[in-house]
Amino acid sequence: MSAPQKQALTVLGLGDMGSALTRSWLAAGHPVTVWNRRPRPVPDGAEPAATAAQAVAANTLVVICLLDDASVRETLADIDLTGHDVVNLTSSTPAEARALAGWIGERGGRFLDGGIMAVPSMIGTPESGAYVFYSGSRAAHDAHAEVLAAPAEVTYVGEDPGYAALYDMALLSAMWGMFAGAAHAFALIGREDISPVEFAPLIVGYQRAMAGYAYGTASQLASGDYAEGVESNLTMMSTTNDTLRRTAAEQGVSIELLAPFMALMERRVAEGGGRESTTGVVDLLRA
Amino acid sequence: MSAPQKQALTVLGLGDMGSALTRSWLAAGHPVTVWNRRPRPVPDGAEPAATAAQAVAANTLVVICLLDDASVRETLADIDLTGHDVVNLTSSTPAEARALAGWIGERGGRFLDGGIMAVPSMIGTPESGAYVFYSGSRAAHDAHAEVLAAPAEVTYVGEDPGYAALYDMALLSAMWGMFAGAAHAFALIGREDISPVEFAPLIVGYQRAMAGYAYGTASQLASGDYAEGVESNLTMMSTTNDTLRRTAAEQGVSIELLAPFMALMERRVAEGGGRESTTGVVDLLRA
Repeated sequence: MSAPQKQALTVLGLGDMGSALTRSWLAAGHPVTVWNRRPRPVPDGAEPAATAAQAVAANTLVVICLLDDASVRETLADIDLTGHDVVNLTSSTPAEARALAGWIGERGGRFLDGGIMAVPSMIGTPESGAYVFYSGSRAAHDAHAEVLAAPAEVTYVGEDPGYAALYDMALLSAMWGMFAGAAHAFALIGREDISPVEFAPLIVGYQRAMAGYAYGTASQLASGDYAEGVESNLTMMSTTNDTLRRTAAEQGVSIELLAPFMALMERRVAEGGGRESTTGVVDLLRA
Repeated sequence: MSAPQKQALTVLGLGDMGSALTRSWLAAGHPVTVWNRRPRPVPDGAEPAATAAQAVAANTLVVICLLDDASVRETLADIDLTGHDVVNLTSSTPAEARALAGWIGERGGRFLDGGIMAVPSMIGTPESGAYVFYSGSRAAHDAHAEVLAAPAEVTYVGEDPGYAALYDMALLSAMWGMFAGAAHAFALIGREDISPVEFAPLIVGYQRAMAGYAYGTASQLASGDYAEGVESNLTMMSTTNDTLRRTAAEQGVSIELLAPFMALMERRVAEGGGRESTTGVVDLLRA
């Protein structure tokens, strides 16, 4: 008696991420049929298909990891998706994911969109902290829970097929801002006799310690009271901004990465929000 | 037999921070003489002085927590500082702190500058994680180690009197960027049926998880090889930037907080750095 065969699936797209995903599924015992537009190395143990249509036909579950939304539509354009569950891990915007969900539905498939919060090397290694946001068809999600869990932790965020991309892009935004702040910090110490390697733990430690500020922002957004529990208010922060500007000038560093945030803080002060926290900046972005 | 008296000190400036510092020293058993330009409530147990000169004369150790550099000079202008150790906790730039160190030295005092990484409510509560960067006279630092340690953890960063302010401003920059990124993230989900309070832990968790990116930046700055160990390079990140821009447009959110960082990434790509990490952005800020 052999162990029961695990669920088979198809992967369209063998870029770095598609290949890493394929390897993680193979390692977990799932047979994988693969296809790539251009010839690419096929991960050991995967079954290459000659055409996308053949690859799709091979399995109910079809995972897509292509360049962009246009590539997905071009690849699936003439393929009958009746009875298939399509999991799209191609980077896209929320609106693209929502439109694609409708387009896949018209072709007979169920749709699940995913936003991968990891680089390829983190796939298949649970200790890496990698996870994937999924949204869209809950039935498709539930039907393939075991498969989906193999490459990275699954975080299902709702039936709206745009939410996975939205969550992904929101967290990337938060990360970009953090990287920008760290870049400015490194630039400030750049011409002093300070080792960036010795300075880095201070940046990392401070960013980790202060990340919880977002809890206060969220609480204020929910209550609508942006002065709730504020100790260091926008008026005081604006004074700090002046010191930051002068420090940058002294050190020969462009203030461009911080300038827009400081300008929005100061606009809020000018509009009467001096006793508030920075939460009002969120509203100014949506104006 | 009574316990030996702990070292007495003077505090000039009773704003929120000066008052919090005074209370923490009193709580630790240090007699404190205080002075403030305008009448302000004197923390229980502190000894008010009628003039700044009298306050300075009362103790060897003088801690200054005033509005800005100009206030410090105005307050001390006509006071003999011979034999005094002056600890300046007033916000300043590195150059201001360096110049002030010389000015205090000319008046006979030893100088220590401090950058407080805390809001007043964190002072005197070790579990808050509050700490103060100090730089300048090591002798003054060593002479008052016990006093300095009472309000918050001490991090001495060198004889250069500008370093405390520089470290302070660098970490604030890193924090500002992080807050800006979180603000953009909250704005992106703003018109969806997503609770900011439920979303906040995702932002906090992701920022904490990705803060360690700064270690890689530091390593690359030290080695000069900005493609060292890069998995997600600037060319790939530029593609992500396009998705971020389209997502912001879809959600009705201004991209202004992220635009400068994305522009510098793309400038680096245009200049041939497509296989690098974001480290080159640091250089562009210093150009």
